[in-house]
Amino acid sequence: MSSYDQNNVFAKILRGELPCTKVYEDDVALAFMDIMPRADGHVLVIPKSPARNILDIAPQDLAALMPVVQKVAKAVKTGTGAEGITLQQFSESAGGQIVFHIHFHVLPRWEGVALRPHTGAMEKPELLEKHAAKIRAAF
Amino acid sequence: MSSYDQNNVFAKILRGELPCTKVYEDDVALAFMDIMPRADGHVLVIPKSPARNILDIAPQDLAALMPVVQKVAKAVKTGTGAEGITLQQFSESAGGQIVFHIHFHVLPRWEGVALRPHTGAMEKPELLEKHAAKIRAAF
Repeated sequence: MSSYDQNNVFAKILRGELPCTKVYEDDVALAFMDIMPRADGHVLVIPKSPARNILDIAPQDLAALMPVVQKVAKAVKTGTGAEGITLQQFSESAGGQIVFHIHFHVLPRWEGVALRPHTGAMEKPELLEKHAAKIRAAF
Repeated sequence: MSSYDQNNVFAKILRGELPCTKVYEDDVALAFMDIMPRADGHVLVIPKSPARNILDIAPQDLAALMPVVQKVAKAVKTGTGAEGITLQQFSESAGGQIVFHIHFHVLPRWEGVALRPHTGAMEKPELLEKHAAKIRAAF
């Protein structure tokens, strides 16, 4: 496994060098809209401490992160009016990882509605902001 | 959301009323082979404390569970010789949940190999045991 790359996109977001549509932040973690959402209200949660993925994150950092993931999952469900939540976490490219700063996908789900495929197409910023506003209001 | 059902399949496994192909157990959690694996070496990790899913688990129980999920993920990767790991957690039926005791799916992944679809077909016990033995040896 490679080491942590300080120039990955999420590290740049954490340093404020790239923008994001934020929905939540505390001392431990940052949550923001996925710019290529697989569902309306698709949020990513990342720890502020550097880690590549599940294989190298310090156990105590993972333990601290997960209650934030849970808090975000509840807000996503309430804010979007979803019926369920799917969490995903990908480690290494074979596992589905594209950005190498550990992140949990929080996906709102509705009965009979499949996740959209990864198309690589970026969502309109105003639509991300619309979903983000509803989720922020649910914390 | 419904409340926790003490008679769900995983509660019965925890009480020893149903068998499982165990790969790891400690005070916090139990890990065993998924009987309908979407990849060879597909393991489930469940907390011993009762919770339905991410929406109701006590934050401290989730925090305690995740370092076990991480330990299992590393053992699955090493034991199966996988190139990556995918974690999934489903909450409520709309989110993909079938058994209503919170569980994390730990899926070993290889480049270019898609997860198998859910077919409902049960894997041969001797094949589950073969994969479990390799994973147990990696702890």
